[in-house]
Amino acid sequence: MGDKVLVTGATGFVGRAALAALHLRGHDVVGASRTADERANVVACDLLDPAQVDALIETHRPTHLLHLAWDVTHGRYWAAPSNLVWLRASLLLLERFVAAGGRRAVVAGTCAEYNWSYGYCSEDVTPYAPATLYGVAKAALRDVMTGFSAEQGLSAAWGHVFFPYGPGESAQRLVGGTISSLLRGEPARCSAGTQLRDYQHVADTGDALAALLCSDVVGAVNIASGQPVAVATVVTEIARQLGCPELLQLGALPSRPGDPPLVVGDVRKLTEQVSWKPRFGLQAGIADTIAWWRDRLGSQGE
Amino acid sequence: MGDKVLVTGATGFVGRAALAALHLRGHDVVGASRTADERANVVACDLLDPAQVDALIETHRPTHLLHLAWDVTHGRYWAAPSNLVWLRASLLLLERFVAAGGRRAVVAGTCAEYNWSYGYCSEDVTPYAPATLYGVAKAALRDVMTGFSAEQGLSAAWGHVFFPYGPGESAQRLVGGTISSLLRGEPARCSAGTQLRDYQHVADTGDALAALLCSDVVGAVNIASGQPVAVATVVTEIARQLGCPELLQLGALPSRPGDPPLVVGDVRKLTEQVSWKPRFGLQAGIADTIAWWRDRLGSQGE
Repeated sequence: MGDKVLVTGATGFVGRAALAALHLRGHDVVGASRTADERANVVACDLLDPAQVDALIETHRPTHLLHLAWDVTHGRYWAAPSNLVWLRASLLLLERFVAAGGRRAVVAGTCAEYNWSYGYCSEDVTPYAPATLYGVAKAALRDVMTGFSAEQGLSAAWGHVFFPYGPGESAQRLVGGTISSLLRGEPARCSAGTQLRDYQHVADTGDALAALLCSDVVGAVNIASGQPVAVATVVTEIARQLGCPELLQLGALPSRPGDPPLVVGDVRKLTEQVSWKPRFGLQAGIADTIAWWRDRLGSQGE
Repeated sequence: MGDKVLVTGATGFVGRAALAALHLRGHDVVGASRTADERANVVACDLLDPAQVDALIETHRPTHLLHLAWDVTHGRYWAAPSNLVWLRASLLLLERFVAAGGRRAVVAGTCAEYNWSYGYCSEDVTPYAPATLYGVAKAALRDVMTGFSAEQGLSAAWGHVFFPYGPGESAQRLVGGTISSLLRGEPARCSAGTQLRDYQHVADTGDALAALLCSDVVGAVNIASGQPVAVATVVTEIARQLGCPELLQLGALPSRPGDPPLVVGDVRKLTEQVSWKPRFGLQAGIADTIAWWRDRLGSQGE
């Protein structure tokens, strides 16, 4: 591109991976986050403060924007009032980015914008019907960005992120939680895990978002693996690699009522139009994640 | 209600009518607008300034909110970037209203949220597919308010406003423009005017919004007459009442390409659930509007 890329949420789970992918692709990138990280070229910016947004844009004059920042506090973000706050902050960021000459934007959406009753989520086919405030706020941002970019001549794409896992993931989530329990020799209690989901190694998620930003594909694009995998398969593979299948208690927890049997993304747009290919399959992805957890728990003296 | 009502956009075309209707219904009402109007109990508040929004809410502690403020600068507002600004301001207002204990909110939407290909716009039936950034931003606010109110226990309704006309309307719009031209003895040039629209006297628009606010009906409600009337019928009636049919040049202007033949609202929800009835038919409404323009042009010494 020969341009200047701004990545928000740059110290987040997906943000770190996206920043690394953009660096690897040779771009001039600056990250923004609440806390600076000089080593990773991340500057401090509170996106909820309009004056700081203005200063960020003024200082770096980005031509390309990858907007990932949002409140995703585990267990709370689906219904939190902060979804309105981040919708406002995202609109302001887009306005200021365009006003300062920004040309290309990619914003992270979610698979939770789709109507999950359909299971197979295909852009431009599967209806949108978010069941949560998080999904509603993201979908609203997508709609407004679409209309705004058409009026302003901004090239804009929307990445529906599915289920990333990998190094840096919270221990409160499925993969991180299962690995950290089993590595400690503690049992991992799971539901029966028959539901099929679209898991993607976060390095692939970040790289796919980077590839989308560097392309000129517009509109919604699934950032997904396209591979439906049972939750039971994921945790069984973890236990197998760790050599402790006896610690895995499949079916010990009840299934969540209303949990859809299948949520998987159609990846034809990502593979054919963005020409993107994943690096990790499930086995390699889990091996990589286990290695990260071993380092992490090891370095804590455990 | 025995409560405190806040009306935003209170000095606007619809806002003045809604404020008057709420006063007539005996409510304790305060209006907010960029410029104060003490006689009408309207205080100054720039809703684009979060500190002023906080002060407004803190001072008046409204239990009920009728949010009408938006940028509707004639000829520009359909595509203007200010739609994002007003979406942000509206979200902030809702957040602060709810945080301060607000219980019931009605926000003005537009018939332009519907897919106009369907012509007949019925809540919960006709698909939404706004063709303009204005419609997109309003629809996004509607979706987010719906999700937010469900999470927060706010009672919320959304008024799809159709085509209000009447005293105070801009001379740049159909009814005001035709009357002011003909009153000056100037010809009024129109398209053939075959398209059918849902015109409503603004006093009825304001009163219907007031009635909706005072009801406990939730969700989308058309604020409309339910009567499809040809544009030609409207301007012909104006010329007839003014006694100058020869000044009316129907067909002198081309029709707008893509202008839908019919846009009319289903008013069953408004009449049956809100139990609201209009005061004005078309003849009486136009007579009332002509009287206002005579006063206005007379008082300017013409």
